[in-house]
Amino acid sequence: MRILVVGGSGTIGSAVVEALRDRHEVITASRRADIAVDMTDPASVDAMFGRVGEVDAVVCTGGGAPFVALAQASPTDFAMGFADKLGGQINLVLRGFEHVRDGGSFTLITGVLAREPIATGAISSTINGGLEAFVVAAATELPRGLRINAVSPSVLEESLDKYGKFFPGFAPVSAADVARAFVKSVEGSHTGRVYALG
Amino acid sequence: MRILVVGGSGTIGSAVVEALRDRHEVITASRRADIAVDMTDPASVDAMFGRVGEVDAVVCTGGGAPFVALAQASPTDFAMGFADKLGGQINLVLRGFEHVRDGGSFTLITGVLAREPIATGAISSTINGGLEAFVVAAATELPRGLRINAVSPSVLEESLDKYGKFFPGFAPVSAADVARAFVKSVEGSHTGRVYALG
Repeated sequence: MRILVVGGSGTIGSAVVEALRDRHEVITASRRADIAVDMTDPASVDAMFGRVGEVDAVVCTGGGAPFVALAQASPTDFAMGFADKLGGQINLVLRGFEHVRDGGSFTLITGVLAREPIATGAISSTINGGLEAFVVAAATELPRGLRINAVSPSVLEESLDKYGKFFPGFAPVSAADVARAFVKSVEGSHTGRVYALG
Repeated sequence: MRILVVGGSGTIGSAVVEALRDRHEVITASRRADIAVDMTDPASVDAMFGRVGEVDAVVCTGGGAPFVALAQASPTDFAMGFADKLGGQINLVLRGFEHVRDGGSFTLITGVLAREPIATGAISSTINGGLEAFVVAAATELPRGLRINAVSPSVLEESLDKYGKFFPGFAPVSAADVARAFVKSVEGSHTGRVYALG
């Protein structure tokens, strides 16, 4: 397959590329990659697909959101998150589906905060919950057998030093396990699924 | 109690006001009410709370989103929905919690599309899913015993003539039953709950 991995430079993105590249042609795009994309900007997403051409799968492992205590969070903080991890990934689907071959797939990234909140994480919870409902809905409407799933990981084992204290008692998950869920989505037959890990 | 109902002029809003007004002081606000509010605009929300003053509960029964086939939906359609039903209700919490008395509550409205998609409903699914995750997260961070819940109804019995064809096989729910869920949230002790009806 020909697979576009957006945000392929982080811990998860690198693991996904590693898991796919032996068997597939993998193209990576991110804010700072050779194929640069700002997924919050539909025109930038269009330009990316214009350069990349047709693919069999679009994988997204990127997108951010502010972490702010709820009592200090502003409408702008939420709007920033909506535009980035939420709207950005949806832009990939809305502007990308015509560039994905029949039966191809989208695999988006959400996260454990959709189901288990942490302090300062309300913006991410909102975004991840929204994306998970989007995936279920979009799976019923995509044309030509196109599929869509989401991978929803807990805190990464590789990030425990930095982020573990914010996830007390959460079972961590390895980037390799997360990458396996992306492979399941891309190479398998599922659609409308959220793979909850950890 | 002193209860602010935002969007109190629709079918659900009217039923909620009816269910509360015998036992409580109910104040209604909406785009076209005496107390006018555009909940997408934080300054308008601030002005509303400035006029209303302290309350024991904030209830929202309003907020819209475009219904568009996914293949025709634009990033702007999603952004409109994010600003309105999703961001608007979150604005009520972010700008309102200092005006709600200790132990008071927020009750937001979501909908069945969070858990059961329909054609053209992907924007609403995304918004409702996001709001439901927000409620669970915000419940863990609100100060002073403030509570927050959501009511997530199926299609209304009162709207079947108009909307029933879009909800094939969905169990409808009466506006009175929906209003009861709002009463449970306002007068009860729950927090972080999503009341799924139908």
